[in-house]
Amino acid sequence: MRVLLFISYDGTRYSGWQWQENALSVQQVLEEALEKATGESVRLVGASRTDAGVHALCQAAHFDTRCSIPAEKFPYALNQHLPEDIRVFLAREVPETFHARYHTQGKTYTYRIHHSPHASAIHFRTRLHVPGKLDSDLMHQAAQVLIGTHDFAAFSAAGGSAKTTVREIYDINVTRDGELVSLIVNGNAFLYNMVRIIVGSLIEIGQGKRTESCFAQAFDTKERLSLGVTAPAHGLELTRIWYAF
Amino acid sequence: MRVLLFISYDGTRYSGWQWQENALSVQQVLEEALEKATGESVRLVGASRTDAGVHALCQAAHFDTRCSIPAEKFPYALNQHLPEDIRVFLAREVPETFHARYHTQGKTYTYRIHHSPHASAIHFRTRLHVPGKLDSDLMHQAAQVLIGTHDFAAFSAAGGSAKTTVREIYDINVTRDGELVSLIVNGNAFLYNMVRIIVGSLIEIGQGKRTESCFAQAFDTKERLSLGVTAPAHGLELTRIWYAF
Repeated sequence: MRVLLFISYDGTRYSGWQWQENALSVQQVLEEALEKATGESVRLVGASRTDAGVHALCQAAHFDTRCSIPAEKFPYALNQHLPEDIRVFLAREVPETFHARYHTQGKTYTYRIHHSPHASAIHFRTRLHVPGKLDSDLMHQAAQVLIGTHDFAAFSAAGGSAKTTVREIYDINVTRDGELVSLIVNGNAFLYNMVRIIVGSLIEIGQGKRTESCFAQAFDTKERLSLGVTAPAHGLELTRIWYAF
Repeated sequence: MRVLLFISYDGTRYSGWQWQENALSVQQVLEEALEKATGESVRLVGASRTDAGVHALCQAAHFDTRCSIPAEKFPYALNQHLPEDIRVFLAREVPETFHARYHTQGKTYTYRIHHSPHASAIHFRTRLHVPGKLDSDLMHQAAQVLIGTHDFAAFSAAGGSAKTTVREIYDINVTRDGELVSLIVNGNAFLYNMVRIIVGSLIEIGQGKRTESCFAQAFDTKERLSLGVTAPAHGLELTRIWYAF
């Protein structure tokens, strides 16, 4: 049977989702837990290849197994073999034709900023510290330009392997709750580093170092240099993967 | 001059606020940072002796110094010598007669529960995992009995050194936001382990293992055994210290 897992992790200690030589990935830790639970050598296919340090409230991944564990029991079977910073919270059987990556309908990412003169002692693993000026209303307003279907070629780091750089952003919102500034973006798919480049650009807009016209220019010229720096990984969270079922 | 610091910390790695032989306390780490910043051997007086594993969004502590650093610059002077999980976020000069512990007007504590079949991979350091039934409305209702001035003798662990066990709770609320159940309590002062015993009892009430009548019985008999277990430290946060200025 094919099983789809929904997984949460604090990415601080990991080299990202994807299996890597000489570095500990979330995929490797999960595959080792699956081997312990099923007695089989299992290959997981993740919905999203989150980078080193990026967190996931909800990642998804599928695998095939011949073991007799009922699909919905996998969270219990796996969590006992997992470290505290990785949890499987839901599992279900899916058709053999289902694919965790190809069948996503959309993804939600959240980026969190601690806007304060001093960093947060409690949230430093999951929020980027930004002191000084940061106009979150201006960031929200500028971000609205990104909604819709565009060629996001300029919003991608070297090393991406996408065939096309056209993506659709459904909605994007920047909100403030005291010292916490959150960006939440929904889209059909995202290029390598796309959310972090959007956030890095919006921060510079919020600081008055750049105007929202940089986005129109980036669509126009397809030049990475039209945009701001890539925001650090640790503020980013893969918040949800959307499937049509 | 006497300086009052406002401090935030993730208590996971520490043996509590108070200086201890053979264990790393928050007080010790701060005193070492103060020594580096001022060149003096400094003794900090904290407002609250938080236990091992308890967090603080806002702890307060005073110290005396002859150094020339302006009081309001201490967050910058100290944070460069502190680990990421301790931050000083505010400092001000206070009169020589001011005392961080004796002059508190009240304290706010927050206790966070992750109510879900599986633990949180992201919030496991700061939230207690409670699976199964947990009626947060019933917990809120039961907690209202605690409001007011009572002899909380039954709500205290052995080892407390208070002269009187009479305390006043101003308000107490249990709220739910999805899987997060939060208890926020305001009072003039709290006995050793008092908040954690209240929370442990309320959890048992929310699970249907105990009724709110246990609180009236505890006031009546002053017996610790009338109440539930002491909830674990890591869900607890000292959220605010109140002063009258």
